[in-house]
Amino acid sequence: MTTVETGSIVHADAARDARALDPVAALEEVAPIGRDDLRGGWSRHLLDDADLKMREWFFQTALRLGLGVESDRNANQWAVWSPEGATGPAVGTGSHLDSVPGGGPLDGPLGVVSSLAAVSRLIAEGHRPTRPIRVANFAEEEGARFGVPCLGSQLLCGELTAERVGALTDNSGTTAREVLSEAGFDPDAIGADPKCLADLAMYVELHVEQGRQLEPLGAPVGLATGILAHGRWRLTINGRGDHAGATELDSRHDPMLVAAATIQAARARALLADPSTKARATVGKLQVVPGGSNAIASEVRLWLDARAEHDADVRALVDGILTDARKAARGEGCEIELSEESFSTRVTFDSGLTDRLHEAIAPRAGIVPRIPTGAGHDAGILAAYIPTAMLFVRNPDGVSHSPHEGASDDDIRAGVDALTDALRALTAETS
Amino acid sequence: MTTVETGSIVHADAARDARALDPVAALEEVAPIGRDDLRGGWSRHLLDDADLKMREWFFQTALRLGLGVESDRNANQWAVWSPEGATGPAVGTGSHLDSVPGGGPLDGPLGVVSSLAAVSRLIAEGHRPTRPIRVANFAEEEGARFGVPCLGSQLLCGELTAERVGALTDNSGTTAREVLSEAGFDPDAIGADPKCLADLAMYVELHVEQGRQLEPLGAPVGLATGILAHGRWRLTINGRGDHAGATELDSRHDPMLVAAATIQAARARALLADPSTKARATVGKLQVVPGGSNAIASEVRLWLDARAEHDADVRALVDGILTDARKAARGEGCEIELSEESFSTRVTFDSGLTDRLHEAIAPRAGIVPRIPTGAGHDAGILAAYIPTAMLFVRNPDGVSHSPHEGASDDDIRAGVDALTDALRALTAETS
Repeated sequence: MTTVETGSIVHADAARDARALDPVAALEEVAPIGRDDLRGGWSRHLLDDADLKMREWFFQTALRLGLGVESDRNANQWAVWSPEGATGPAVGTGSHLDSVPGGGPLDGPLGVVSSLAAVSRLIAEGHRPTRPIRVANFAEEEGARFGVPCLGSQLLCGELTAERVGALTDNSGTTAREVLSEAGFDPDAIGADPKCLADLAMYVELHVEQGRQLEPLGAPVGLATGILAHGRWRLTINGRGDHAGATELDSRHDPMLVAAATIQAARARALLADPSTKARATVGKLQVVPGGSNAIASEVRLWLDARAEHDADVRALVDGILTDARKAARGEGCEIELSEESFSTRVTFDSGLTDRLHEAIAPRAGIVPRIPTGAGHDAGILAAYIPTAMLFVRNPDGVSHSPHEGASDDDIRAGVDALTDALRALTAETS
Repeated sequence: MTTVETGSIVHADAARDARALDPVAALEEVAPIGRDDLRGGWSRHLLDDADLKMREWFFQTALRLGLGVESDRNANQWAVWSPEGATGPAVGTGSHLDSVPGGGPLDGPLGVVSSLAAVSRLIAEGHRPTRPIRVANFAEEEGARFGVPCLGSQLLCGELTAERVGALTDNSGTTAREVLSEAGFDPDAIGADPKCLADLAMYVELHVEQGRQLEPLGAPVGLATGILAHGRWRLTINGRGDHAGATELDSRHDPMLVAAATIQAARARALLADPSTKARATVGKLQVVPGGSNAIASEVRLWLDARAEHDADVRALVDGILTDARKAARGEGCEIELSEESFSTRVTFDSGLTDRLHEAIAPRAGIVPRIPTGAGHDAGILAAYIPTAMLFVRNPDGVSHSPHEGASDDDIRAGVDALTDALRALTAETS
């Protein structure tokens, strides 16, 4: 599979297509890939059929634009523009091509497509960059297959080990080790990649807005201030499976009742928190074992997503929810096992880089608000290592992680304008 | 597939194995079929691989015992003992070989195995029955694949139409019509089968006890008085899918909150009911769409199982739960669609037949308590058409619809003793 030849860069002989890539047309090209008939929207998960097709599209499109392409050891893809005169570490840009189950068309792909489009514009206008530009497609940003978000960028930065990631299993019980091996990666070679990180001087990620802050301000694009602290916990609630008809109410140990109390506690504790902490907590994934309509469940697994302004706010929120959940479990004679699947500390993006982006973008974009976000991103992982910033494209309804997520064609093109202006400015300097 | 040749009875040339079938050994024979590694226990659903293997086992075992075997139009199997001198409608016995997802080893198979064992004992002892004996393996008793319990017996009795059943879909979206066709049944020919029903003079089903009433009484077997009224409802709760991190609490329409309120209402309303109504309500199956840990759900489907002494008690219970669920939905800005998947009216078994069984069984079994049950059975469907009774075998922990369901080998053999005594008595008479 051409898309996963790690290490060696594949170079196109020359720019085969000098015309700039249109982002709206490119999004239409990938729209048939990974449609989810069951949930609606798109499901593209790490190295599944849909993800492999997206990777092949990335590979072919980069080649067509005259870029080099490589996969790193952690299943991240990179399209590289490094013409004569470009030296030193690159300006990184890009996003991811995977999705949540039944996700929207833009979360991920908009950033990758816009990055390729911006580079193609710079090529077409004859720009001579002083630094290379590297466009990333980060692996498993959503964590939908193996439960750990930003898997590719966390591995790259050494925040996860090969040992831990290799042992992760998907819903069918297949390990990440097996999936990586199957796709041609060496599961023992994943993890910290200082060389790849050193190739990046900075990173700018464009993403569709999640939430609805730009619309009321009349702005097609915005810049991120930071990312709320956030984490993901798995609760396994063990009760006693039994017959729904034959079991008296007072002999039940039904984990569904504990799950219900936990779902309500997540909302109640987030509402109780100081509004300035922007606390929010959600249960969006829940599995019932055995799951028969006439069987009292023996076990319920649920995933708690909690976010707030600062790390301590998240910890306090989760502690409160768990207190309520454990109280419900005691009342029902059930046990709770807790596992922290991820924790991402509060991210503040680089203010110097963000100021430079603002200066480059504002002449064409007009008002460029600065907004925080509750969503995690690979940019949030990289921010601990290199100067990092994010650009958001207006989402008129604010809906995301849903097929109803959207942005107008005009705004998508305004996003590419802004990213082009940003990359031009960042590669016109030698600092 | 030999097991599904409908209509024509396959006759063994002669009793190939005159030794009686040992029920414990027979249960060990089928134990490897349909193990569920994911949930634990067994998953055997209508005409899936495991169910087809169980059917083949039934077919071969009946032939080995010298019985005829046929499948009726509704995918129910019948093993028939009709030696010379046996005339008129048969004494029916049997149970089912399908299971709930991750169910136990006895719910269903114990009744089928015990029936075949009892008939083999009567053959071995040289009993000359005045009536044929027909051993049933009823299709899809648990309703685990298509959501409608007692599918085979309800079709046989004309309580479901070919049109309605054909359109039912399983979790993968496959219709019952397709599944039946694939297995060699004519999906247009399913439904009321008066000829098959007229072949039965009465029906006696042996089943592992569900609940724990026999253990405190020191009785290995018991007789059923009746079955609680019960039904199954599917609630589809529609909200708005969105990002778990980026969506403010006050812009959420999260159907999980409504599901949580419904689960709690099921328990609370059942506890509120008059204890004499034996009201119980359970949510044991729940599906989240899209089911991503960082996505607010767009839709939750949950199944409500409700039971009580009388039909009106069940209706009142469900009305109360729905009132609470709808109130929660209004508060969250969600919509609920309701579908009644089944409703089974209160069953009282035939007291004359039950008295005859008691008389036949008591000399060997000792104390034979009469107990009600909260679980539905094919016997409950047939009870509206022919005299019907049920025998229960002691379940020391009372657990059922779970891999932990059990009965001692001694009690299993005591159950076969009782059923043998019952069938001998019922086929020694001419009335």
